[in-house]
Amino acid sequence: MLERMNSLAPLLAPNSVALIGASDDPQRIGGRPLRYLREAGFAGTVFPVNPRRDTVQGLRSYASVADLPETPDVAILAVPAAGTLDAVRACAARKVKAAIVFSAGFAEADDAGRALQEEMTGIARESGMRLLGPNCLGVFSPATGWYGTFSAMLDGTLMQPGPVGIVSQSGAYGSHIAHLARQRGMGIGKFITTGNECDIDVAEALRWTVEQPDINVVMAYAEGIRNRDVFLDALHVAQKREKAIVFMKVGRSEVGAHAVSSHTAALAGSDAVFDAVFRQYGVWRARTTAEQLDVAQACARGVYPKSNRIGIFTLSGGFGIQMADDAEAAGLDVAPMPEDAQRKLKAMLPYASPRNPVDATAQALTDLPLMTSYVAAMLEKGGYDFFTGIFGSGPASPTFAHRLREMLETASRSSASTIMSLTMSAPPEIVRSYEAHGFIVNEDGTALMTALGALVHFRESFDRARQKESDAPLPAPATLGAGPLGEHQAKTILSAAGIRFPAEALAGPGDDVGAVAVSIGFPCVIKIASPDIAHKTEIGGVAIGVADEAEARAKGAAILARAAEHRPDAQIDGLLVSPMISGGVEVIAGVSIDPSFGPVVMFGLGGIFVEVLKDVTFRAAPFDVSEAHRMIREIRGYPVLEGARGAPPADIDALADMLSALSRFAAANERCLDSVDLNPVRVFEAGKGVVALDALIVTRSSTP
Amino acid sequence: MLERMNSLAPLLAPNSVALIGASDDPQRIGGRPLRYLREAGFAGTVFPVNPRRDTVQGLRSYASVADLPETPDVAILAVPAAGTLDAVRACAARKVKAAIVFSAGFAEADDAGRALQEEMTGIARESGMRLLGPNCLGVFSPATGWYGTFSAMLDGTLMQPGPVGIVSQSGAYGSHIAHLARQRGMGIGKFITTGNECDIDVAEALRWTVEQPDINVVMAYAEGIRNRDVFLDALHVAQKREKAIVFMKVGRSEVGAHAVSSHTAALAGSDAVFDAVFRQYGVWRARTTAEQLDVAQACARGVYPKSNRIGIFTLSGGFGIQMADDAEAAGLDVAPMPEDAQRKLKAMLPYASPRNPVDATAQALTDLPLMTSYVAAMLEKGGYDFFTGIFGSGPASPTFAHRLREMLETASRSSASTIMSLTMSAPPEIVRSYEAHGFIVNEDGTALMTALGALVHFRESFDRARQKESDAPLPAPATLGAGPLGEHQAKTILSAAGIRFPAEALAGPGDDVGAVAVSIGFPCVIKIASPDIAHKTEIGGVAIGVADEAEARAKGAAILARAAEHRPDAQIDGLLVSPMISGGVEVIAGVSIDPSFGPVVMFGLGGIFVEVLKDVTFRAAPFDVSEAHRMIREIRGYPVLEGARGAPPADIDALADMLSALSRFAAANERCLDSVDLNPVRVFEAGKGVVALDALIVTRSSTP
Repeated sequence: MLERMNSLAPLLAPNSVALIGASDDPQRIGGRPLRYLREAGFAGTVFPVNPRRDTVQGLRSYASVADLPETPDVAILAVPAAGTLDAVRACAARKVKAAIVFSAGFAEADDAGRALQEEMTGIARESGMRLLGPNCLGVFSPATGWYGTFSAMLDGTLMQPGPVGIVSQSGAYGSHIAHLARQRGMGIGKFITTGNECDIDVAEALRWTVEQPDINVVMAYAEGIRNRDVFLDALHVAQKREKAIVFMKVGRSEVGAHAVSSHTAALAGSDAVFDAVFRQYGVWRARTTAEQLDVAQACARGVYPKSNRIGIFTLSGGFGIQMADDAEAAGLDVAPMPEDAQRKLKAMLPYASPRNPVDATAQALTDLPLMTSYVAAMLEKGGYDFFTGIFGSGPASPTFAHRLREMLETASRSSASTIMSLTMSAPPEIVRSYEAHGFIVNEDGTALMTALGALVHFRESFDRARQKESDAPLPAPATLGAGPLGEHQAKTILSAAGIRFPAEALAGPGDDVGAVAVSIGFPCVIKIASPDIAHKTEIGGVAIGVADEAEARAKGAAILARAAEHRPDAQIDGLLVSPMISGGVEVIAGVSIDPSFGPVVMFGLGGIFVEVLKDVTFRAAPFDVSEAHRMIREIRGYPVLEGARGAPPADIDALADMLSALSRFAAANERCLDSVDLNPVRVFEAGKGVVALDALIVTRSSTP
Repeated sequence: MLERMNSLAPLLAPNSVALIGASDDPQRIGGRPLRYLREAGFAGTVFPVNPRRDTVQGLRSYASVADLPETPDVAILAVPAAGTLDAVRACAARKVKAAIVFSAGFAEADDAGRALQEEMTGIARESGMRLLGPNCLGVFSPATGWYGTFSAMLDGTLMQPGPVGIVSQSGAYGSHIAHLARQRGMGIGKFITTGNECDIDVAEALRWTVEQPDINVVMAYAEGIRNRDVFLDALHVAQKREKAIVFMKVGRSEVGAHAVSSHTAALAGSDAVFDAVFRQYGVWRARTTAEQLDVAQACARGVYPKSNRIGIFTLSGGFGIQMADDAEAAGLDVAPMPEDAQRKLKAMLPYASPRNPVDATAQALTDLPLMTSYVAAMLEKGGYDFFTGIFGSGPASPTFAHRLREMLETASRSSASTIMSLTMSAPPEIVRSYEAHGFIVNEDGTALMTALGALVHFRESFDRARQKESDAPLPAPATLGAGPLGEHQAKTILSAAGIRFPAEALAGPGDDVGAVAVSIGFPCVIKIASPDIAHKTEIGGVAIGVADEAEARAKGAAILARAAEHRPDAQIDGLLVSPMISGGVEVIAGVSIDPSFGPVVMFGLGGIFVEVLKDVTFRAAPFDVSEAHRMIREIRGYPVLEGARGAPPADIDALADMLSALSRFAAANERCLDSVDLNPVRVFEAGKGVVALDALIVTRSSTP
């Protein structure tokens, strides 16, 4: 895999490039890349290829790739779908390292296009040439003037370089956010659009981009993923290297998911699982495009806070309240100023409210030197990691804007590690001047607090990655066999994987179930034991609360009779006898195989929490115990486990152990598993453990 | 009240104005209003008042209000707090109709300021002069060039008139959103900031603004309200007149609520109750400032859709998916094109995906006439009330932007009633040109869908107001008496109000509880009957499942003994016997007195829904049955009432009747009530009614 990673370098940092289908018209798809490269002063060599011209936009043109004086690092294919195959063949023959295919009309269009795409991919793979696209908008990297794209968004204004990467399956979306970033004065380091992803996909592009030293944050976009391992590796590397990923994943809704499948070949996994994976790896999932930009802009400097404590400075009480609401909603701590600091501030400005939000009132504006000392005192004494100032439309006046900024700069001089931010509405040039001095600025207070909350989120995620122990090796795969598994077999297999079940005994066809029940104790539960009967209650195959030996014999016989009546074809192993266990909190856990992420573990509380409120959460397997703890805390019903309604706290540690063990079992056996259900599971009070009362393992119909 | 309403007219449409404390310096608080009035060409007469000058900014200055040649409609007081009282006295003496007080240093500052404010208010009230402020930024109304404000936001650029009103307690917030509105090219019709609200408050300003014919939508801001009746009347009038209110209510969080109380004298009611009142009256509560502007901008034309059907047109599949996700989340219906229309579109553009989102692919751009016919066919055949086009950064190029707009205009010519909207990123002048042609434009797709969803929300709210029957008169107040009420009394009172309880009988001190139980039937419930014992189970005062006469006597005696032991002081009325009722869905309902809104009804499901999930909802009393239905549907546990887990649907109609009856009881008795609890209430299956098993009424300690 490492070799494949390195092979993206020529695509994003080529020394030479051929433009196949080069046009003299700088507005055409074949003309734009050349125009952009020349406008940007690209230092590498550019070879236009166009058999019908001697020069293209003033550069010497070549009749074919074969005629080029040297092998270019990258070829840009600006030719229609029909001509692509020949061009790819010519590039492959010339040992070009990577090609970018702009044209649509491939797998996204129809079966013929799909066949064309597959043929093209085969040619490239055979020669080791990497392909980007087809149906993509290409790449750019402004620092070196490299523009392998025809995006119309660059008409008139190229991009500034900067620490923000864009990796987008959709060229239109990638261009849209690049444009919005430019409007906000954000520089872009790397821009990669992957289109139909016949070779290079979002996962690989992301994996490469987060390794780049000039990138602090990546704005990513995808409808689905094709390669789980590379994708999860990319997320993991980003987390370890403290690179923030701000992801727009679409296809949440039913209509959206339908459109995904009609639009691309990408497998859209369950959106809830994507959500869980993002939480697992500390990716920020943007709910809106604006949020994606807000968060990326805040992360661009690569500076993260030590804690979530925020000091809010306002000249308007109401505005301060709004910001406090938003700060709390974003997970920030609007901690009050220390009492002695409040006294000091009160002495400086008797009218002001020095708690937090610190409300200096509009009157403070009449004495800027005093306000400077006031803010300085707030910063020194408050111990805040964030400072936010609420200036509203005040800085809209240029003179005033300048003086306010100087005031803040002077006041914050001795609090260098505080992340400074502002809510204000002003013309762009004023906002840019604040940003140039290190302030995070947003005209919407809620958006600003969300972005600061995201910085805390990333700080915690990066810390988790650092503190995480190296993954223990997975257990050896279990022997699941080819056929269906009975409850007793499932429990035996899962017991070996570390899941706890009640002691139980099988009364085989000839055995006396009464005697077996005596050995277990009363009251007990008796269930039909058959690999062919998954849903035992439906055929009357379960008796609970069996009180004595005689009842055990009677109920056992009745169960066997009903099984014979309803499922005469079923293999009957006998009767399973287990103690009647009650008490504790009822939860459920399970494993399913997600089309995108493979084995995932589901967890929820039993009863109405799952059935009415759909209050469940997921994780990609495997995960460790601390991740299991985070998972457990995510459900809305979590207070029940903490001991709601006078109940004692439940054994959450044991539950986390169980979920992690289940995830390791799932990962070790993913190729043979279809699903696992542990339902119900009883979580007893703290220290008393967790017991799964029933287990169902469904193996894949086609076991390898 | 009507008279008071009319009295806001001079404030917002004065013929003459005195500026007390007028300054020659156009940057000072006393100079700005004069400058703005002159820049705006205010047609009325302006009288600067400044005893130290002969002229102010070129106008003749007067030494005092007494010296003015005529009585001005409005006086602007641009003097410090200390000088305000004299100025207010002078204005009152001169019979000025309204005064605007800019200065801070009143009730928001300290006790001395509070006293000053009260004195000032008293003087004004005595003379019938209305007061705006103190501590406010004043008003403006650009259509007449009337600027009674010193907001620095107007430095350099005044406002354009338009159908959007701003009513804000906070001057800073009001200026901020006015500035943001101006940046978006939105015109403002009326701008009112109320500050400390010593006389005119947000409720009255809102009530007046929604009556103005030039206003279609109001952006409002408040920390709390002072006058429930005027506030609710304002919301009701707005709903009836189809004026949209987009409200930023702050103080959601604990810190925020703390800051509210430290900041203003406004009583901050429970935020959840505000939320409920907004839902009740169809007010849109903005979660963010940006959303407030997004929604107000969409409502500015006063055009609302017939339904929530939206057709999404995209050139990028992925973008279309994102928009479909957002549309669904906003409550819009991304209904597929009719089959025959899909066939027609498919014939026009074989590559395109014609379902909805209709994805024409970027290729459609190569043939704009064809794309025009394509979009026209989509609009004609789709029957959508909304059209949204996803153009991304395409229109960022001016030439292309113009052609795209023409394409859409031509295509939509025969679908005039469709609300046309676009997601695109482009320089402001291009966006303005689209807006001038009637398009709703937002660079953020999620924000656009939220705004369109708000249009549906308002359409439904306005329809509700139209269909609503006139309120039935409230029942006569009940005789609640002065002391505490026992369960039996509470039930008798509430029965008369239309709440259903089980048949029950009181066994008085000398009666045979066994015989009474026989008359009720077995199994039965026996409870202590005492107005002094509210929480009966805590003293062992309840026996359930009593099976026969003998048990009734024994349990009854035990209950009386425990009551005598635990509460020897309590008045004992005897024992209450009622049938043991089980089954149905357990819910709770109650009444409390909210500091802002008075009597509010609370409703929720019993058990974990209330205790763990806090899954309750509110309404201000009184409300009708259809409002009760909407209330019931709001709780997360609603599926339980619809019949989750195989249970039959519950009698939601009877539940709605009960909640409405409870609300009417609460409204009729609000002056005597402290709270009502109906807990538990059992909702039986549809057609079988609702029964409250217990009732507690707490009357106010100080009954009138």
